[in-house]
Amino acid sequence: MNFAETLERDAQPIIDEIYQDHFIQELLKGDIKKEALRQYLRADASYLREFANIYALLIPIMPDLESVRFLVDQIQFIVNGEVEAHEYMADYIGENYNEIVQKKVWPPSGDHYIKHMYYNVYAHENAAYAIAAMAPCPYVYAMIAKRAMKDPNLNKSSILAKWFEFYNTEMDPLIEVLDDLMNQLTANMSETEKNEVRENYLQSTVHELNFFNMAYTSEKWQFGGERV
Amino acid sequence: MNFAETLERDAQPIIDEIYQDHFIQELLKGDIKKEALRQYLRADASYLREFANIYALLIPIMPDLESVRFLVDQIQFIVNGEVEAHEYMADYIGENYNEIVQKKVWPPSGDHYIKHMYYNVYAHENAAYAIAAMAPCPYVYAMIAKRAMKDPNLNKSSILAKWFEFYNTEMDPLIEVLDDLMNQLTANMSETEKNEVRENYLQSTVHELNFFNMAYTSEKWQFGGERV
Amino acid sequence: MNFAETLERDAQPIIDEIYQDHFIQELLKGDIKKEALRQYLRADASYLREFANIYALLIPIMPDLESVRFLVDQIQFIVNGEVEAHEYMADYIGENYNEIVQKKVWPPSGDHYIKHMYYNVYAHENAAYAIAAMAPCPYVYAMIAKRAMKDPNLNKSSILAKWFEFYNTEMDPLIEVLDDLMNQLTANMSETEKNEVRENYLQSTVHELNFFNMAYTSEKWQFGGERV
Amino acid sequence: MNFAETLERDAQPIIDEIYQDHFIQELLKGDIKKEALRQYLRADASYLREFANIYALLIPIMPDLESVRFLVDQIQFIVNGEVEAHEYMADYIGENYNEIVQKKVWPPSGDHYIKHMYYNVYAHENAAYAIAAMAPCPYVYAMIAKRAMKDPNLNKSSILAKWFEFYNTEMDPLIEVLDDLMNQLTANMSETEKNEVRENYLQSTVHELNFFNMAYTSEKWQFGGERV
Repeated sequence: MNFAETLERDAQPIIDEIYQDHFIQELLKGDIKKEALRQYLRADASYLREFANIYALLIPIMPDLESVRFLVDQIQFIVNGEVEAHEYMADYIGENYNEIVQKKVWPPSGDHYIKHMYYNVYAHENAAYAIAAMAPCPYVYAMIAKRAMKDPNLNKSSILAKWFEFYNTEMDPLIEVLDDLMNQLTANMSETEKNEVRENYLQSTVHELNFFNMAYTSEKWQFGGERV
Repeated sequence: MNFAETLERDAQPIIDEIYQDHFIQELLKGDIKKEALRQYLRADASYLREFANIYALLIPIMPDLESVRFLVDQIQFIVNGEVEAHEYMADYIGENYNEIVQKKVWPPSGDHYIKHMYYNVYAHENAAYAIAAMAPCPYVYAMIAKRAMKDPNLNKSSILAKWFEFYNTEMDPLIEVLDDLMNQLTANMSETEKNEVRENYLQSTVHELNFFNMAYTSEKWQFGGERV
Repeated sequence: MNFAETLERDAQPIIDEIYQDHFIQELLKGDIKKEALRQYLRADASYLREFANIYALLIPIMPDLESVRFLVDQIQFIVNGEVEAHEYMADYIGENYNEIVQKKVWPPSGDHYIKHMYYNVYAHENAAYAIAAMAPCPYVYAMIAKRAMKDPNLNKSSILAKWFEFYNTEMDPLIEVLDDLMNQLTANMSETEKNEVRENYLQSTVHELNFFNMAYTSEKWQFGGERV
Repeated sequence: MNFAETLERDAQPIIDEIYQDHFIQELLKGDIKKEALRQYLRADASYLREFANIYALLIPIMPDLESVRFLVDQIQFIVNGEVEAHEYMADYIGENYNEIVQKKVWPPSGDHYIKHMYYNVYAHENAAYAIAAMAPCPYVYAMIAKRAMKDPNLNKSSILAKWFEFYNTEMDPLIEVLDDLMNQLTANMSETEKNEVRENYLQSTVHELNFFNMAYTSEKWQFGGERV
């Protein structure tokens, strides 16, 4: 088992939690509150814009030109709009994707996740710290989707099944590259440093759990004094 | 009302929430779980170390030498140990402060608060963004303490009453300087930029609420898959 | 005259100096020491790699997605190798371009130019500072080339004439975008800030003069104690 | 010989060059152009302000609280004005120090030196890179001064002799701490990384040579197109 595989192993309990949580279970059955999907698409649009920025901040600390080219492609993919998967949700809602994401949302859980990634790309010269904070995103989507495709509860007549189909394979190349980079960049790390990278990975997996939950509950900042 | 005063006005509902929350109410009555205070002291020790780092990162973007000297004094105050207030809590617990904080904790709410401040000092050249993320800390402590000193429920026979006495006046000079800096540094900002600074201030006030709550509940990262 | 045009106007005396300097004059006549071109290609290869990094660090501070897409294209152009213009020089030398640039050089003048650009992208949140430190590169090459194409001294039978042909038009779209960005991003600046941006532009134009001269003289760090 | 000692050994040829150069030789004889000292004091004032900023940016990447306290003291020393040594030069000029440094200068050689240090504190998480770019300053001044104190050509009747007296001992504690930090922070580095740190140290020693020369020649940016 290489280092990245141990991270993925340690994240399984949280991924189970994500799979069993309301958002994914209702997505699976093709029966989820439209407002939950609106919130998800809006939060995801803000999240992806920052994800592209963090990919860009990683470029100067990439070990070789090949990984720079890979990041450039990823940025291009994002800034040109990761359309397909979002369109299925927009169709389910019955509204135009671009109109849905006109409204910007920045809930606490999304804020924490994004600042977790920014902190690691700003504070650490070794890209492994930030990549470990980013890698759970594609990995969680792929694991959820692969599990859903084999789940008898998957409502194949719902357009939302296509969301799972999309992530069933789409993320695999990205996961492979990010895993290779994490293995390469942690090869000479001390155990203390590796544990910090592991902590980043597990924290981001928890952030994925919170991200879906944030959308499901339409989480907002409680500046009015209500319990957060 | 200047800009800083409007931030303090908008934060009142959250400060009320902090005052009414378990941690402060039990501190007030001099009857709080020792483990809650241990967690608070440990989390606060990690928090203060990062607070000093963020003060340092602010130095190159300070408008004048006078504010640089002020930050240097603040860093010195922190790295030499803000002893007094912590000692009252350690006495209440009946253990040595330095032994209590030997154990490092880094719960999710503390992580979010610290990365919120780091993000703003790394991402913004105008120091107002980061100062607005830092200023609620002294302001909340001062407001809580001044209110407690007039609260009939304050158990004056408890050593914890001294904690309120300490923060009743100790933070005032710091609050004044941070308010002046926020007023000065936002003077030429657009409304959009001022709202981002306001959002930073209110988010950090919510983080203060979560910080006390985090200590009270011994909040931990749920990597085992339990609900976070 | 917009702001970017005033920068270009103020840079003319330095561009004249570059045009009259040994490197360009001998390039024009198609009669230049091969070692000068080797040094230029080697230094340019290091320079371009960092230029791509600085484009990447600019992405998070771009005003809109369109300028992000533009930067991504520029990075892609560089990391995929700006082959054509270099090949003409390699042909003149009679050696393979990739073999020539295997040897890494990092002379003082190149070091200063690159750290000037990095400083501005790290230290300033407004991208105009860094763009003004980068914009002279394409602008100087275009002005030099357009002038050479009308210069009777241009040795049209030399392959090096193609170098001028390449830069005669190739940089124009890039110059236009960088000028638009500088005009847009300095629109709300104070005169003091605009003068700092102007200083960055003129310093980089001097760095272009030094860059060609550095290649011509095979400039090296004098760690042996000789006069630098 | 530890790592820091090997850097100091390798820098000797450049330090000899500095000692033999016009600025120090004329300072030694107590007979130097007043304008050279004005330029030196002005450039040094800008340089020290940035030096304090870079010390501040180092604080978050210091290995322990003790080195943080050391840096805080250094920043305090600078922002409170490293008066004594400058006063001897001001006396020689016959003008008030603060009036002399009212005029800001930022010549090319000073610009390169400062951006060399900033680049290393921004781009590298291991503080050794930036410390190696900063350590030659106190070391060069101490070596020059200790040599001058034994030099028969030292004009002991000139007030400038006190400048050498000041630096004869004043920098020693600072050199010791910076050397210890460089030894500690490079202990686990690869040979490639150590060579980059060595390169930083030697480049800064050359920058010290250029700094004195810059003052002696009243070096300016040649935006008018004159040869730089």
